[in-house]
Amino acid sequence: MCQLLGMNANTPTDACFSFTGLASRSGEHQDGFGIAFFEDKGLRLFVDPQCARDSPVAELVKHYPIRSRNVIAHIRKATQGRIALENTHPFMRELWGRYWVMAHNGDLKAFAPRLHAAFRPVGDTDSERAFCWLMQELAKAHAGVPAVAEMSATLRELTAELRRFGSFNMLLSNGQVLWAHASTRLHWLQRRHPFGRAVLADGDLSVDFAALTQPSDRVVVVATEPLTAGEAWVSMAPGELQAFVDGDVAQG
Amino acid sequence: MCQLLGMNANTPTDACFSFTGLASRSGEHQDGFGIAFFEDKGLRLFVDPQCARDSPVAELVKHYPIRSRNVIAHIRKATQGRIALENTHPFMRELWGRYWVMAHNGDLKAFAPRLHAAFRPVGDTDSERAFCWLMQELAKAHAGVPAVAEMSATLRELTAELRRFGSFNMLLSNGQVLWAHASTRLHWLQRRHPFGRAVLADGDLSVDFAALTQPSDRVVVVATEPLTAGEAWVSMAPGELQAFVDGDVAQG
Repeated sequence: MCQLLGMNANTPTDACFSFTGLASRSGEHQDGFGIAFFEDKGLRLFVDPQCARDSPVAELVKHYPIRSRNVIAHIRKATQGRIALENTHPFMRELWGRYWVMAHNGDLKAFAPRLHAAFRPVGDTDSERAFCWLMQELAKAHAGVPAVAEMSATLRELTAELRRFGSFNMLLSNGQVLWAHASTRLHWLQRRHPFGRAVLADGDLSVDFAALTQPSDRVVVVATEPLTAGEAWVSMAPGELQAFVDGDVAQG
Repeated sequence: MCQLLGMNANTPTDACFSFTGLASRSGEHQDGFGIAFFEDKGLRLFVDPQCARDSPVAELVKHYPIRSRNVIAHIRKATQGRIALENTHPFMRELWGRYWVMAHNGDLKAFAPRLHAAFRPVGDTDSERAFCWLMQELAKAHAGVPAVAEMSATLRELTAELRRFGSFNMLLSNGQVLWAHASTRLHWLQRRHPFGRAVLADGDLSVDFAALTQPSDRVVVVATEPLTAGEAWVSMAPGELQAFVDGDVAQG
């Protein structure tokens, strides 16, 4: 199964620690990785069809502390679509003058929507097809970037459609908000004052966030499986959609 | 002035040498750099609002030989739009199920086209505005990726419109073809058998391409100014558009 990682924070934060935790899981996920960092409206998107453990791009990401308020990462175990750069998550499109980034974990069976508008898949994954369909339907539902609650309401309708075709755990961001949709497995965690020490569940790396943060900092981390031991990860319910803004759960 | 670099080859080729030549010119171009590598339909796009000489991302690109048949790079000297990630070239959009990448050198004055379709700028440069307008007009002119000659004909019409607003040297690629449009300054060079030694015009680095190539290899390099000494760079005429395919000038 693929692994998802998302981060939403109220202040630009580096994702080195969490990404290292994610990359250590790439033993069974050899088929590529990607990570997207928003900096305000701008986007850095690193994708590599190599295993994250062998990739020079992953090394750069682990050691170069890009500070971002919204991050989406993905480690791929190919289910549909061959191993190729164009099939490597996250995917990116522009809508309403904003970049949108999406990564998917799951498997949609026989999902062949009518794509009659401006969004077409470049590769051949069910995931990119679903992303193009989401963009198309969002473009029909709203004339510009809607309020968070409105956008979440539309996404709840659209993801319910997608769940009819199989499992669809998803992270989506436009640099302002991180949306997480659970179909089978997704967990999230908020870190805020008072900060403590976190230890990676799969490695021996630990970080003392108290030494690295301000009391006003807030960050939400979303991951397929809890990345750390001893922190209060929340398991999302099947069908649940959450919007995170400024390192907190958005209202509505 | 910004600096453009493009490469089109008939076999996957690394751009380390040419990119090093480009990056050495970043003394007067401190306002960011970017480079896009196609691998078949897939795309790696590295952008950094830092000076290429200081950027860890530029270091990665110089030393990690990503092999590609179509590359577009840009070093920015901001004229319009502040220094920000979203204003850093090259820009990318998807059209007809292909990624399109564009970088611009020049300055369009008072260019405010009606953008009524699916392509909106994220940043505030004249360059991204021109790219969105090009994508919009191409989407109207063709129903899918057209033959190279047809696409070139449409681009000649559209770039003639853009030249009315100022200087517009441009590189555009969809991973199959590299289009170069000269408005004021652009040069290109073909390397093919028999290969020789090339010396960077601005540095002391040299490469013996004969030792690194097969006799069947062909590569075209396009740059604002000739990157090497002792090679036959062709100066493009104002208003000229060239399409390069498989390391050669496309017919038509």
